[in-house]
Amino acid sequence: MQCRRRGRIIRARLRAPLVRPALSVGLLGFGTVGARVYRLLSDRQTIAERAGGPLTVRRIAVADLEKDREMKVPGDLLTADAAAVVGASDVDIVVEVMGGRDQAGRLVRQALEAGKPVVTANKQLMAEDGGDLLAVAARSGVDLCFEGSVGAGIPLIKPIRESLAAADLRAVTGILNGTTNYILTRMASEGYSYADALAEAQRRGFTEADPAEDVDGRDSAAKLAILASAAFNVTLRGSDVFREGIERITRKDLAYAREFGFAVKLLGIARGAGGMIEARVHPALLPLDHPLANVADEFNAVQVESEDLGPVIFTGRGAGGPPAAAAVVGDVIDVARNLRLGVSGRSRPAARRAARIRPMEDVVLPYYLSLQLTDRPGVFARVAAIFGEEGVSIASIVQKSRGEVADAVFVTHDAAERAVRRVVERLQSLEVVKAVTNRVRVEAKV
Amino acid sequence: MQCRRRGRIIRARLRAPLVRPALSVGLLGFGTVGARVYRLLSDRQTIAERAGGPLTVRRIAVADLEKDREMKVPGDLLTADAAAVVGASDVDIVVEVMGGRDQAGRLVRQALEAGKPVVTANKQLMAEDGGDLLAVAARSGVDLCFEGSVGAGIPLIKPIRESLAAADLRAVTGILNGTTNYILTRMASEGYSYADALAEAQRRGFTEADPAEDVDGRDSAAKLAILASAAFNVTLRGSDVFREGIERITRKDLAYAREFGFAVKLLGIARGAGGMIEARVHPALLPLDHPLANVADEFNAVQVESEDLGPVIFTGRGAGGPPAAAAVVGDVIDVARNLRLGVSGRSRPAARRAARIRPMEDVVLPYYLSLQLTDRPGVFARVAAIFGEEGVSIASIVQKSRGEVADAVFVTHDAAERAVRRVVERLQSLEVVKAVTNRVRVEAKV
Repeated sequence: MQCRRRGRIIRARLRAPLVRPALSVGLLGFGTVGARVYRLLSDRQTIAERAGGPLTVRRIAVADLEKDREMKVPGDLLTADAAAVVGASDVDIVVEVMGGRDQAGRLVRQALEAGKPVVTANKQLMAEDGGDLLAVAARSGVDLCFEGSVGAGIPLIKPIRESLAAADLRAVTGILNGTTNYILTRMASEGYSYADALAEAQRRGFTEADPAEDVDGRDSAAKLAILASAAFNVTLRGSDVFREGIERITRKDLAYAREFGFAVKLLGIARGAGGMIEARVHPALLPLDHPLANVADEFNAVQVESEDLGPVIFTGRGAGGPPAAAAVVGDVIDVARNLRLGVSGRSRPAARRAARIRPMEDVVLPYYLSLQLTDRPGVFARVAAIFGEEGVSIASIVQKSRGEVADAVFVTHDAAERAVRRVVERLQSLEVVKAVTNRVRVEAKV
Repeated sequence: MQCRRRGRIIRARLRAPLVRPALSVGLLGFGTVGARVYRLLSDRQTIAERAGGPLTVRRIAVADLEKDREMKVPGDLLTADAAAVVGASDVDIVVEVMGGRDQAGRLVRQALEAGKPVVTANKQLMAEDGGDLLAVAARSGVDLCFEGSVGAGIPLIKPIRESLAAADLRAVTGILNGTTNYILTRMASEGYSYADALAEAQRRGFTEADPAEDVDGRDSAAKLAILASAAFNVTLRGSDVFREGIERITRKDLAYAREFGFAVKLLGIARGAGGMIEARVHPALLPLDHPLANVADEFNAVQVESEDLGPVIFTGRGAGGPPAAAAVVGDVIDVARNLRLGVSGRSRPAARRAARIRPMEDVVLPYYLSLQLTDRPGVFARVAAIFGEEGVSIASIVQKSRGEVADAVFVTHDAAERAVRRVVERLQSLEVVKAVTNRVRVEAKV
């Protein structure tokens, strides 16, 4: 019985096609990433070897045919008709590097429904519509790969889905945005103000003209959604992720955090427990000996935790055209191999459950709170009493008088977000509390 | 033409077997890793989901049937006849976790020649015979997977071979041994002597009863050979790797290195350039802001460099039964999927070139040299003259008088190993040089 089955498997293998004609790639978008993908596929010999045969870019959809381009390509490759590229009978694999959600989403769906595998580096699209598109890909029996959509060239999606397939993953924690990590690094190490550090990041080209999506956490939330969906095999959208930016972090917070033994990083955190998932992006205090605490400048890093493995951390430059293009072409190689082996769309199960997300109010963490108090007898006791009455236990305190006003900084033990919010509200209503200057979550046992 | 081809591919896919009977696993070895593999395959539901169907351990080969085991298994699973497990008609996948080179190698080869895919966590075997065994696997058209053979649960082999397939890898640099990293961390951070730190590592169970293979670099050399072979698609053996251990590193070296802005780590380094590969394991000074400089305690980390990606770093606990078992089962899932899809042995090309290894004498690096000099006028000039005459340029110097004798520590600019060896020889013959206390390579531009 076993033998017969194995016999059948071997026959099936021998029956698969043995000739290796060139596979054709249709490129949607020809910006930094697209041009680099074209160049890699055209020039690098090892790619054809690894893909099991040649890969040829046959059509490229661009928004503006007249635009002057740095990279010259044969004129008949370019077209403004993206749908025609997807539908062309001589396009076997569609590579979407145009960005944006609506048009890109329609084209990706059209390709998948036509039975063509798709490789995309589109963070926004995968963060919001990834679950739907993976379901379409599964129904059509084709691959949808998206390694380049998060962390650029850092291998994340495939190691999480495949290499760690046997591990029972419990949490994904990441520094997912290079701009904000650069800003926080400059503020901590060189005493820059937030505004100066942001300006420096812009000057060095780490940020878009409008850095809002970086600093308010939207970019990190989209990436976290993609990673958490892969890690927990669920559908979790970027818009499902609780989100707070770094705009309110001051040099003073960074200095006090360091006094307590912490660095401050903008983290994306997804944690599964009791059938629910916490998913949140916010600045967080991390112990200085935490593996992510020393990830500096524009570097990104993702820590995956499981009972079997302990922490595993993937680190690298999380952005840039060449890294993203290398990730895209890595996916194209996979997709081409699967097409040639006749197993397209069946390399991994795509069925995902809906994520049950834990409301932020229920999340339990230690907190860092910084206050400005009127510096006179009895004030501290009144403040401390409010913590006590709301059941929030204080782990450490630093108080520094600055004349009439004193800085008071607290790190609490584990407390529900709900309780901390009540503490903050009540403190703000006290006349002796000049300001609750900040409240930052802590990722550690305190 | 294109359409016809695609039609054929789709037909081939539909023809592949659709039923999903259980696949059977034969386990060679039932130590810490083997027992954990058995437990994961028996207990964890998600593994069958991800493997596309059930996986059942049907036979387990052990050296001693009478041994009292913590994990109880049905008695009829156990046998002392390992060859019979490999040959059994009801074993589809062979998992080798017995260790050692000779018997394990024969059994793995027997399995591959019989057309059975093999998963192994055997570092020694893959480091010495990996190239041959992969060739046997390719000829037989079956998979040979070995993620667990290096870095335990840290995904390395598959990300390097697949996720980074489009990148032009130039170098692999790793902290590949947890024991020595623990020892160097304790010496640097707590001022332990080498002997005390080693004793502490033994007490905490990080090392074997005989830690010789850890501290002399053999363990790291074997792992480097496996990684470099995968990264550069060559056959490079552990015994091809230049090797120096950490036995001569003193607290004083660590302190001087820190004065110059360096940490000291035992590194495995493989670098491809000009058609040749440098492959070496030795203690090295790393700038304190290097991503590997802060990898502490028993953690391992591997940095892969390419022009496209910049550095990408994989970090985690590089040893232990549960992580190694998770890596093994991750491979078993891959192997099972490939068997079921009828593409066993064809998921990646296995053909490797022989590695051309650069002789160590030709390797060019900055060096750290520490000397003890007679402390009197003119001595320093005589020492410096020897550096100059051999064409070794000095970047920085620290000299500290300790009565009659002075410590003199040098960091050079890039210099050929050959030239530095001559410098050391000539210094040793000078009467005013009491000792050349150490010579450590530097991994940085100086």
